[in-house]
Amino acid sequence: MSIQFQIGATDGPARVGRLTIPHGVIETPVFMPVGTLASVKGVPQDVLEELGVEILLGNTYHLYLRPGIETIRRMGGLHGFMSWDRAILTDSGGFQVFSLNELRKVSEDGVTFRSHLDGSSHFFSPESAMEAQIGLGADIIMAFDECTEYPAERERARASMEMTLRWAERSKKYFEEHKNEVPWRTRYLSADREGKQVLRFAQDDNSDGGDRHYQTQSLFGIVQGGMDLELRRESALRTVEIGFPGYAIGGLSVGEPRELTREVVESTLEHLPADKPRYLMGVGTPEEISEYARMGVDMMDCVLPTRAARHGLLFTSEGKVSIKQARYTQDEGPLDPNCGCLVCRRYSRAYLRHLYASNELLGQVLNTIHNVTYYLDTMRAVRHAIQLGERARFLSEQSGPKP
Amino acid sequence: MSIQFQIGATDGPARVGRLTIPHGVIETPVFMPVGTLASVKGVPQDVLEELGVEILLGNTYHLYLRPGIETIRRMGGLHGFMSWDRAILTDSGGFQVFSLNELRKVSEDGVTFRSHLDGSSHFFSPESAMEAQIGLGADIIMAFDECTEYPAERERARASMEMTLRWAERSKKYFEEHKNEVPWRTRYLSADREGKQVLRFAQDDNSDGGDRHYQTQSLFGIVQGGMDLELRRESALRTVEIGFPGYAIGGLSVGEPRELTREVVESTLEHLPADKPRYLMGVGTPEEISEYARMGVDMMDCVLPTRAARHGLLFTSEGKVSIKQARYTQDEGPLDPNCGCLVCRRYSRAYLRHLYASNELLGQVLNTIHNVTYYLDTMRAVRHAIQLGERARFLSEQSGPKP
Repeated sequence: MSIQFQIGATDGPARVGRLTIPHGVIETPVFMPVGTLASVKGVPQDVLEELGVEILLGNTYHLYLRPGIETIRRMGGLHGFMSWDRAILTDSGGFQVFSLNELRKVSEDGVTFRSHLDGSSHFFSPESAMEAQIGLGADIIMAFDECTEYPAERERARASMEMTLRWAERSKKYFEEHKNEVPWRTRYLSADREGKQVLRFAQDDNSDGGDRHYQTQSLFGIVQGGMDLELRRESALRTVEIGFPGYAIGGLSVGEPRELTREVVESTLEHLPADKPRYLMGVGTPEEISEYARMGVDMMDCVLPTRAARHGLLFTSEGKVSIKQARYTQDEGPLDPNCGCLVCRRYSRAYLRHLYASNELLGQVLNTIHNVTYYLDTMRAVRHAIQLGERARFLSEQSGPKP
Repeated sequence: MSIQFQIGATDGPARVGRLTIPHGVIETPVFMPVGTLASVKGVPQDVLEELGVEILLGNTYHLYLRPGIETIRRMGGLHGFMSWDRAILTDSGGFQVFSLNELRKVSEDGVTFRSHLDGSSHFFSPESAMEAQIGLGADIIMAFDECTEYPAERERARASMEMTLRWAERSKKYFEEHKNEVPWRTRYLSADREGKQVLRFAQDDNSDGGDRHYQTQSLFGIVQGGMDLELRRESALRTVEIGFPGYAIGGLSVGEPRELTREVVESTLEHLPADKPRYLMGVGTPEEISEYARMGVDMMDCVLPTRAARHGLLFTSEGKVSIKQARYTQDEGPLDPNCGCLVCRRYSRAYLRHLYASNELLGQVLNTIHNVTYYLDTMRAVRHAIQLGERARFLSEQSGPKP
């Protein structure tokens, strides 16, 4: 089996689960930090491991442009290329291309777009997006979809949703025919010259019958339908009919009010199978990821913690901290007194403020480490709360009046 | 004792030594990475500790401007401010102000200069430079000197040297009168809420008679004299006459040819007392620091490894690598096959090249970690070679013909 999803405790619509994929076992609900260009900006992979990051997200559009899919494929995919042996998920490039606005042209075939780097012309189709994602070799890859713009007329949203469904079929067909081409290598541990255990790679000839011989990536479908709940329902049902081992809710966080996001998410979740992982793409603040997890979402990703960190905006148990403010110049306290991350254990707000104000690289590094920790801790707390909720329900049922 | 210097093995003019100062014991010859603004750009302090960095250099001029001496002083000096419990050395600001060229005006009193940040006007004298360095609280601080420009007429070099000598006297006088004002705090280990040992600080009331009660910073003198060997000799002898626990050779790497640097260093070293640490300021390449150490230099610092790293220039056992080059795009090998640093153990040249080409923060972080390691390893190899040299001489004397 290349993917398994076991649900543990539940509490209302929320559930904790265990997602087993080729490069790891992930406790859900999970937040996936974004490593756009095969790096979570500024944070070495060993630090991500220490923080407990179990799955990263990579962006196909960006990696396709730099360093190019072929370069990564030849090195065993993203895992080999960036020396990350835990799980990875890649997006399909659809949303990124959508974000290019003026630089793209959509047809039934696919999307012609211009690189944001040099203006060169490129083309993504469901087939080429699958080919790219197979080359990148993430554990979970995404169907190529069209992200409907906001606002959109109902007919436009329907037409877009219908095309996403046709593209989902084409994505699945290409993936099924090519999934054995994933460039994973057999991994083995060996000792380096100092006797330390290091991970080495050898080209997998796919003939040794090893553990990973029969393992492949998993392709998730994406529900679209704009902000129309009826279209969302239809999109969900028809995507499930095509059949995927997991389902994403796409097309949100595109400018709509948060209350509308919430409504679409809640209503879409009802139409997704309970026994499959549900991935809400591109959200959100710590409060939002917490709330969506309570609604039954299993996976989320967002650039917010990492991007905000580089701009000096930090999430803490006492609220947001804009570390650039002069009020922190002499503040000897830790960034977040309730956080156990390596930044909060060692450095003061005054030091972080100085690094930011002096434009020191280390500021961006430390801020990112803290914010990623804060997001992971938020998900840990949610998982714990779901487990406690089930336990409390069980106890209250046990102690209730006997019939 | 606030400073002790014990010489171990010697091999010709070269020696290995052990420098004991309040925040650590340093094996010499030592290379000191530069942490201009209280950070070795991009590298967290715990990584510096792992790399084996025992002493860092901070720049008084830069720290005086940002975040300001008073901010750092209030937090227990640089050690408290940047949460670095190992040794630190600060320069006097003299060289940095010298580098401002058009923005400074020198008189017998001191130097008026304009900030490179906002053009505001400031003044450094031997007294104010000492006051600043006492506030920063480095283990070793430097006399305020005038760095003679290159080239300079003999009379100009003499006048400048004479002023540096007068400034050395003033520096020493101020330091002796104020050295008990160093803002160090009593440190103690305590357990954090997860049971991990963390370093905490408490204001030292200087009344508990603890280990550090009688410890102070150490002030080193600086030899100037331009490129004139006779002036260098005189500067050395008269600086030694003033009396310091260590001596630096300043005014080099200011544009002169390397052969001349070497000549001035060699000739100046002859006039410095053998039992005191000798610090050559602002050099150099790995080959140069190796060579100077063989000539009898004990301490060196340079921005080269860290600055070059940020520009993609890496030092390896196989020569310099410019990681931006397209030839590394597909290169799966480690940056330096003979290096055991965390970068060479984990990442490929192809990945480092990608990070550089994509302007990813992590590239600067990893490159800096490697280059600092390479410099530290170079010094380790030199120390080892000196020890082997003494051992070989000893053995050859033992086995020589009996008289």
